[in-house]
Amino acid sequence: MTSQKGVTVWFTGLSGAGKTAIARYLEPILRERGLKVERLDGDVVRQSLTRDLGFSKEDRDKNIERVTFVAKLLTRNDVLVLLSFISPYRVMRDHARDEIGNFVEVYCYCTLEALMERDVKGLYKKAIAGEIPNFTGISDPYEEPLNPEVRIDSSTETLEESAAKVLAYLEEHGYVPPVPKLDGSTYTVEEEQLIEERLGALGYL
Amino acid sequence: MTSQKGVTVWFTGLSGAGKTAIARYLEPILRERGLKVERLDGDVVRQSLTRDLGFSKEDRDKNIERVTFVAKLLTRNDVLVLLSFISPYRVMRDHARDEIGNFVEVYCYCTLEALMERDVKGLYKKAIAGEIPNFTGISDPYEEPLNPEVRIDSSTETLEESAAKVLAYLEEHGYVPPVPKLDGSTYTVEEEQLIEERLGALGYL
Repeated sequence: MTSQKGVTVWFTGLSGAGKTAIARYLEPILRERGLKVERLDGDVVRQSLTRDLGFSKEDRDKNIERVTFVAKLLTRNDVLVLLSFISPYRVMRDHARDEIGNFVEVYCYCTLEALMERDVKGLYKKAIAGEIPNFTGISDPYEEPLNPEVRIDSSTETLEESAAKVLAYLEEHGYVPPVPKLDGSTYTVEEEQLIEERLGALGYL
Repeated sequence: MTSQKGVTVWFTGLSGAGKTAIARYLEPILRERGLKVERLDGDVVRQSLTRDLGFSKEDRDKNIERVTFVAKLLTRNDVLVLLSFISPYRVMRDHARDEIGNFVEVYCYCTLEALMERDVKGLYKKAIAGEIPNFTGISDPYEEPLNPEVRIDSSTETLEESAAKVLAYLEEHGYVPPVPKLDGSTYTVEEEQLIEERLGALGYL
């Protein structure tokens, strides 16, 4: 494809709910479709952009301000941005939406029970023990999105299912071209989802 | 034109030497040629990216680190970035060059005499009076570029002449398409420079 409409896909939700996992899963799929893609998350920006910031409300806000600025520049230059930050405060997410324009909010929901059971990094255990101050969902607030464009639930969906939801939304709204069929026509979102599930089950995805 | 090769044009030099003036002058000319352009300088990034930073060596380095990151993302997504910061330390500019890849260093030179005589913002007077600590060129070092791609001298050149030098370099290296003639061929850099000078003299630029 020759032209691409920039957009920021903003993944928000508690630590461990799947924000970065979905973004990482989607990144190569979107590149495969010929799109310019940048992924922005803690791992990517910490060294150069947000090294000085902690987890106080003020520092969280600064963090979101900086990545919002970067996402705005990339989006208006036709890049698809996959951005994953807890971003617990509604006012900051709404400000980002206003600044960026083409904005898809993906609420990565997961029950607290499932998060505590998973607890890959052992953070929830520490937070509950009071060893981590300002831990979102335990000792710090998380303001749920009121009208997210996409809502996933990683306590009931597989990673593939959640990613397919996001991809379907992006296709339906013209941010991602549909996969062309061999006869030149294109698959419907449902067909494609089915194909991806099969490819996934066969171990190809 | 359908494709554009990203590049960061990095303007370095003392305060008042013309960095941002040249960038602002070039911005509409480059957009006119159908290019994606972003300008990064203190005015653009202070609010969202570098509000917390002062003029200590450490803060200057952080400033450059952050804008280098942003310029890198834009450049690899095919944007032409006009970036103007004093950026007095050679090691930080060289690091930016390594990170960004397509990199054109424009050394904006001006004699200290001319800068002090101009002194639009009255900063040199204050710095010499000791009222501004860490003022580059007076009470803080400036490490001159050793091999800049372009060197301009705003104590002997007009703004238009300096800008034409930068534009010529960008055209010669394929970052900016040449202006098409009516017969379909293109002007040489010299012809175009001449045309711009004439248009400038006539008040059209």
